[in-house]
Parts: sequence; C-alpha cells; structure tokens
Amino acid sequence: MKAIQSYISEHQERFLSELLQLLRIPSVSANSDHRGDMIKTAEFLMDKLLSIGMDRITKFETPGHPIVYAQKVVDDDRPTVLVYGHYDVQPPDPLDLWETAPFDPVIRKTDLHPEGAIFARGACDDKGQIYMHVKALEAMLANDALPCNVKLIFEGEEEVGSDNLGDFCEEQRELLSCDVVLISDTSIISRDTPSITVGLRGLTYVEVEVVGPNRDLHSGVYGGGVANPINNLCEMIAQLKDDRGVIQIPGFYDQVVELTTEERKSLNLAPFDLETYMTDLEVNDVQGEDGYTTLERTSTRPTLDVNGIWGGYIGEGAKTVLPSKAYAKISMRLVPNQTDDEICQLFTEYFTSLAPKAVKVKVTPHHGGAPAVTPTNTPEYKAASKAMKTTFGKTPIPVRGGGSIPIVALFESVLGVKTVLMGFGLDSDDIHSPNEHYGLWHFYKGIETIPYFYQYYAELK
Amino acid sequence: MKAIQSYISEHQERFLSELLQLLRIPSVSANSDHRGDMIKTAEFLMDKLLSIGMDRITKFETPGHPIVYAQKVVDDDRPTVLVYGHYDVQPPDPLDLWETAPFDPVIRKTDLHPEGAIFARGACDDKGQIYMHVKALEAMLANDALPCNVKLIFEGEEEVGSDNLGDFCEEQRELLSCDVVLISDTSIISRDTPSITVGLRGLTYVEVEVVGPNRDLHSGVYGGGVANPINNLCEMIAQLKDDRGVIQIPGFYDQVVELTTEERKSLNLAPFDLETYMTDLEVNDVQGEDGYTTLERTSTRPTLDVNGIWGGYIGEGAKTVLPSKAYAKISMRLVPNQTDDEICQLFTEYFTSLAPKAVKVKVTPHHGGAPAVTPTNTPEYKAASKAMKTTFGKTPIPVRGGGSIPIVALFESVLGVKTVLMGFGLDSDDIHSPNEHYGLWHFYKGIETIPYFYQYYAELK
Repeated sequence: MKAIQSYISEHQERFLSELLQLLRIPSVSANSDHRGDMIKTAEFLMDKLLSIGMDRITKFETPGHPIVYAQKVVDDDRPTVLVYGHYDVQPPDPLDLWETAPFDPVIRKTDLHPEGAIFARGACDDKGQIYMHVKALEAMLANDALPCNVKLIFEGEEEVGSDNLGDFCEEQRELLSCDVVLISDTSIISRDTPSITVGLRGLTYVEVEVVGPNRDLHSGVYGGGVANPINNLCEMIAQLKDDRGVIQIPGFYDQVVELTTEERKSLNLAPFDLETYMTDLEVNDVQGEDGYTTLERTSTRPTLDVNGIWGGYIGEGAKTVLPSKAYAKISMRLVPNQTDDEICQLFTEYFTSLAPKAVKVKVTPHHGGAPAVTPTNTPEYKAASKAMKTTFGKTPIPVRGGGSIPIVALFESVLGVKTVLMGFGLDSDDIHSPNEHYGLWHFYKGIETIPYFYQYYAELK
Repeated sequence: MKAIQSYISEHQERFLSELLQLLRIPSVSANSDHRGDMIKTAEFLMDKLLSIGMDRITKFETPGHPIVYAQKVVDDDRPTVLVYGHYDVQPPDPLDLWETAPFDPVIRKTDLHPEGAIFARGACDDKGQIYMHVKALEAMLANDALPCNVKLIFEGEEEVGSDNLGDFCEEQRELLSCDVVLISDTSIISRDTPSITVGLRGLTYVEVEVVGPNRDLHSGVYGGGVANPINNLCEMIAQLKDDRGVIQIPGFYDQVVELTTEERKSLNLAPFDLETYMTDLEVNDVQGEDGYTTLERTSTRPTLDVNGIWGGYIGEGAKTVLPSKAYAKISMRLVPNQTDDEICQLFTEYFTSLAPKAVKVKVTPHHGGAPAVTPTNTPEYKAASKAMKTTFGKTPIPVRGGGSIPIVALFESVLGVKTVLMGFGLDSDDIHSPNEHYGLWHFYKGIETIPYFYQYYAELK
C-alpha cells in the first residue's frame, strides 16, 4: 500500500492534467448535437484504460450513447468489484451564469477548497469521480497490487435516464457478474465529516402540455372568452400541493415508508445549520413539507418540483398574445417504497383530472428510477467505511441522500448485487448548476481511498 | 365621387403591389434588431405620401421609433380630419407556425376570403388598413376632390405601448389641431354585417419575476427543502382568479361600470354562434367569468391573461434543475371606468402580497392604456355609418370591441377631440398570431368607403 500511495503522490500532476483533458470534451448527452463528443469521450476513456493495463476494453453500442467496458481478472477465487460511473454531463445552460466557460476547466481557490477546485461541467458529476477510479486502478496495477478482480462500466446516458443500461445489463449479465457494485457519484458532508450515502431517492420525470385554442390569439379580441393554457397550467400546478407543502396526488404517499422516531433523530444529528444554509442560498426562508426538518425534506421525503415552464411570448417587450399552448417539465423525487411507474401513473391520472373541459392535456413520461436504501452491515459497506476512516481519520456517517441514482435498483434486480456509494464531492459543488466544480483535495482523497477499499473488501469478503 | 371610384378601380393592382412592398419590411417595434427596418418603413410611407401630393411631410424623431406626419389643408373653413395609424407590427413568433414567411406576403383564398387574402405580419394590423387611407387620399387628390382638410400621423410604437406619442401630441398640439380623429385599426363583424367599434378595452401589462435561491440548484440535493420559484409563481398566478373566473385583486372591479339590462340585451343581439366559435378554435368549451356571455366577456368585462411564462430548463430532454428564477408577462384588459395606473398598482400590491417569505418578487409595468367608449350621436359617427351603408348596403352595427387602442383616450385628453373607429378587418384575421391575413375584398372596400366618409363628414359637420 505504501508503494501505491507513493505512486499516487508522484503522478498527481499528470492525473490532474488528464482529467482536465477529459473535462474539455462537452459530452452533453441530452443534446443530439454532441453525439460526436460522446464518442470522443468514450474513446478517450478507452485509451486511458488501455494504457493502465486493463483488459477486454470494449465500446458497447446502444440505441443511444455507447457504454465503455473494461476488466482485470487477477484471480477467479478473489471477489469481483464492478465499478460504475457515467461520462455524460448535464447541459451547461444557463451559460451566462458561468464565471468561466463550462468546457474550459480552470482551477480557482474557494473558501471550502483552499487548495483549489476545478471549475467545469462534469468536474464532480461524474467525470472527476470516475477518473479517480481509473487513476487508483493505475496505481494498483503499476505496483502489481490489485487485491480483487475489477470490472468497469462507464455509461453515457445517466443524465438522460440510463434508458439503455437495463437492456445492456440483461444481455451482458454473465460478463457483468460480480460481488458488489462500487459507485462514486455522491458526496460527503465535509472533509471533516466524511459520510457514505446509504439511501437515495427515486425519480419520476414528466413533461406536460396544455392546449387551449388551436392557434395563438389576440388577447383583446378573445381574452376573457376562451381558456388561456398558461393560466390553466398554473392553476393545475398550484393544485399539486396544498399550502402545507403536501403533495395532493391521490395515493402519492401510500407506499412511503415513514421513518421511526429513532431514525429521524439519528438523521437530524448530521451537522446542519439552517442559518448558514439560508445565507448561502440568499433566501429569507426555507420552504417544504410541514412537520419535517430541511434534512428530512431533502432526503427522506418525496418531492414535486417544476423543473421548467414555458409558453406564450417570452421575448423582449410586450406582446398581447393569448397562446395556444403551455408546457412544463415536472419531476418527483421518490422514497422507499414508492415506484416510479406507479407514481408516474398516479400523477398522470390526477393531473389530467385537473384539466377543465376547455383545454386538452398531454403527459409524456421522460424517465424514472426507483429509490434505494443500502444496508450498513455488509462487507462492502464495512470496507468503504474502514477505507475512509484510514484516509480521513474519522469513521464516515451513513446518510440518506436526496438525489437519484436509479441504476442502484437496476443492479440489484438484474445482477442481484448490492451497491456501495462511496462518493467524494460536496453538496455545494454546484453539480447540475452553473460553475460546477470539484475540489482538488477531494479528487486526490478519492484516489487515495479507493485502493484501501479493495484491500479491506478482499479481507472482509 | 364617380371619378374617385373609377380611379380606385383602375389602379387597384398597383395599390395592392405597393402594399405588398410595405409588408415586406419587417417593422417589428419590440425588437431593437429591427431599428433599421422601422426607419425604412417610415421612409417608404413618406415617399408614397409625397407622390400622392400631401404636404409638410415630416419624420418626427422620438426617443423610440419615428412618427410620420403629412397634411393637406384645402380650405381653413372646412373641417379637419386627423388620420391615425401605426406602421409597426407585432413580433412574428412563433415562426414555425406560419405556413408562409411572415414578411414575404402571399395571396391565398380562404373560406371567408374567396377573392383571396394577403398573408403577412401587419397585413391587417395595421399596414393594410393605413394603406387604405393613403390610397383613398390619392384617389381624392388625383380628382381634386378632397372635401376636408386632412392630417395624418403614422406611429411606429403602437405594438409596444405608444410610449412617445403622448409627448409628441402635447408638443405638437397646434400642428395636430383637428375636429375628429379617424382610425382604421379595428374589425367589422362580417362583410354581410358591417359594424363600427364604439367601445374599446384599456390595458395594463406587467412583467413579474419570482426569485428563490440565488442560483440554479440540483433538485435532488435541494428539492423539497427550498422554494421553487416556478411552483411559487404558478401558485401566485392561480390566486389571481377564483374558480368562477372572477379576478381576485382587491378593488379590481370597484370602478367597473356595469351595463344595464337593456345594454346587455342589445349587445347580445350581435350575430354570434357559440358552436361555430368553438369549432373554429377547436375547443370543447369556452372559459370565462361566470354569469356573462362570450360576447360580454370579450368586450365589456375586464380580463387577466398570462401572455408568456418561462423559467428553468426548457430545452430538449430532461434536466433535474431547481431554478433560481421564474418569469411571466401578465396583461389585464380594462373597461370603463378602470384606469390603467390604478389597476397596475392594485395588481402589484396584491401580487406582491401573495409571495411567500422564501421568494422575492419584482413587478415591472410595461405599458398601459385607458378604456374608451365613443358616442354614436356625433357627426363623425353618422358620417362613418352612412359611408359604410353606402358601400356595404347595410347600416353598420355599433359594437364594443375587446382590444385596446389606448391612443383614443390620449387624443381626447390632449387634443380634445373624439375618435371614430372605422376598421375593415375581421376578428378571424389572426392579427398578433401566426398567419395574419387581410382580405383583398376588405382592403378595397376600405379604400372605396373612406372617400364617402370625407364627403358625408363635410356635409354633416
């Protein structure tokens, strides 16, 4: 292990420079203009995996973006770790809020990152975090000290719903057979308070269209007499929650597992200061479901948010149009034991029922994913916990995260294995937002920690 | 008069071809990119006014777009008619809904326009209608048979609120002194049922901004815990009307003059078929204030419509963003005796009061205009009525229109004169919408009718 850690120290400048190259390729999966960049990114990763000595490097084509696979089988008797990550990134919009260009990474110091952080789309989510694995594997392979078999899949469609990953796992069930899945796509509370995510919310994401008259009309001539689809859409959205923040979709909470008093107490022990939280966001108040703390609202409670809305005239100046159509993108974060298909159906039924006769409504599901909770008494959790304790000097806290990694449920159902979520980002890293960044300290801490995971997992399994 | 009408018949092809030239200049006042086109349009009109023999042709600069002036004083003892119109047009968006390009006019037959209609932005509102006046004046001047003095102003900011017209009228009060204002910027019920607009709704137009957290956030990490400005904006908009369609702004209806039973009865005598109306718009129901007919809702009742809304991610695919800001453009049509300033203030107070503590709200007034009702016992109304009776073969019906021409109130207060609204469009001409058009029959009928107006007005005044 000493040799591995020395190797990491010696090569850290090159590791960073390679990551910056990776961040320069705008692999935006949501936008078909970036198809070529997706392939370029996949091939960049394949090159790097080849150069560190991985085997069976393959680009699996899918109806969407390709999946990169690589493996190193050192001994059939040793346990096998499947590392999952994604090389696609969120669209960088709104571009004007970026202080530096999203695909031209720069390193800048911040209060939380005195050693500097890399500012770029994907820096933390998830290119920075997958590249820690590539470099940790390099260090172990270069020292001939990989204690487990390793399989690696990097997909290109996580940010658009992993539509083709399910079929791929079904088809490649044998190739992907393993003992555990290891993912770095989550965060820790802080460098002083390491944590491991043991719960994730699921997701249902829909797009709605409300249609009134068959064409845009003059609001003077027709105004007051016909349905305005924007007003109607707003009125329908307003009926999705009551004034206590409770979601009004019938049956929405039926499957929600309420936490015990003990669990709520333990969850609320995590360091959290409401004043600091509000100051950071520059808000005068928080807003959420009555009767729950902010930590609970953002991790163990389901939510409903409008992620986008548009309709009518949105240009400069004034236009007295009565539009024909209005649209919204609406997502719901789910908790155990809600299922995305059922919630999508309940939403669709309720939302459609809210429409007055004067408008037509269409609900199109985008993508979903099941919520997941991982146990803490497994060899993989213990290995991750011990590894972080070794490098951070403190035992990490198990926490439930608010985000969604739908593939955790997928791996469990298709491959029959549990996942350990050992991520190294911070919630304040602005993933999915302008000025996404990833601390250099965190990047190197990840590379340092991963080899310990393999060592302890081989021992504990 | 016979010579005038013969002249019109002889030159009708040239009249049309000149109008098509005028329609090819994209004079979109709302968009500063079209500044050059605005000047080009003003100069095109000045050229034509010069060629027909008008005097004192002037381009008055304003802080916005220029105002074109021309006059012909034939005899100080004769009455003076001030013709007002506007050469600016609404933005053509959404472009993809146009069957042919908005600034490349084409003539196509439709059910209502068997002789063909000109499809182009501004065809009816208001380039087609101002050009009727230019050509009617040409016919009278060419035959040396103009019975009144004429002053003409064509402004370039009607579609953006006529911001600079008030100051211009104040400054040029003497130049603009007249006995009546004549405007063609309204419609008739149908070619079989001519009508004259005697009432117009006023307008208050505002833009609202709702701000939550100071930056776009990941809806998984923060969702459920902080205000989502889109959800909040929708909830606030939903509170602007109750489920009977009654506007909830305190004081909103205080100044509204309720119509008498007689007035309501007479108004509802206008030909109107609800089934045809719904079929034309392809809607299963109309929507509006309880207790009023569609004709009342669209003419004598005030309204509130969201004309545009936007916020969050509105691109292709899904993005789980919790946006920082959401916006809407909201307008209210006003009826006598509401005033736009007061309603704007009442709206602002109420809307702001609806905002929860977790968001900040900003309301920016765009432009407004007072409602207007014109009497039917005046020489100008009688002259217009008699002129239309002569050319249509039927006495026109006085109707109250739902749209707004704020300058009617302005001319009354600054110049102390009444306006007659003799328009020739149809409500189905899709003004402010894609595929705006103006029937050739209507264009020529306008040119034919206008000289009679001058003749009868000179006699009756």
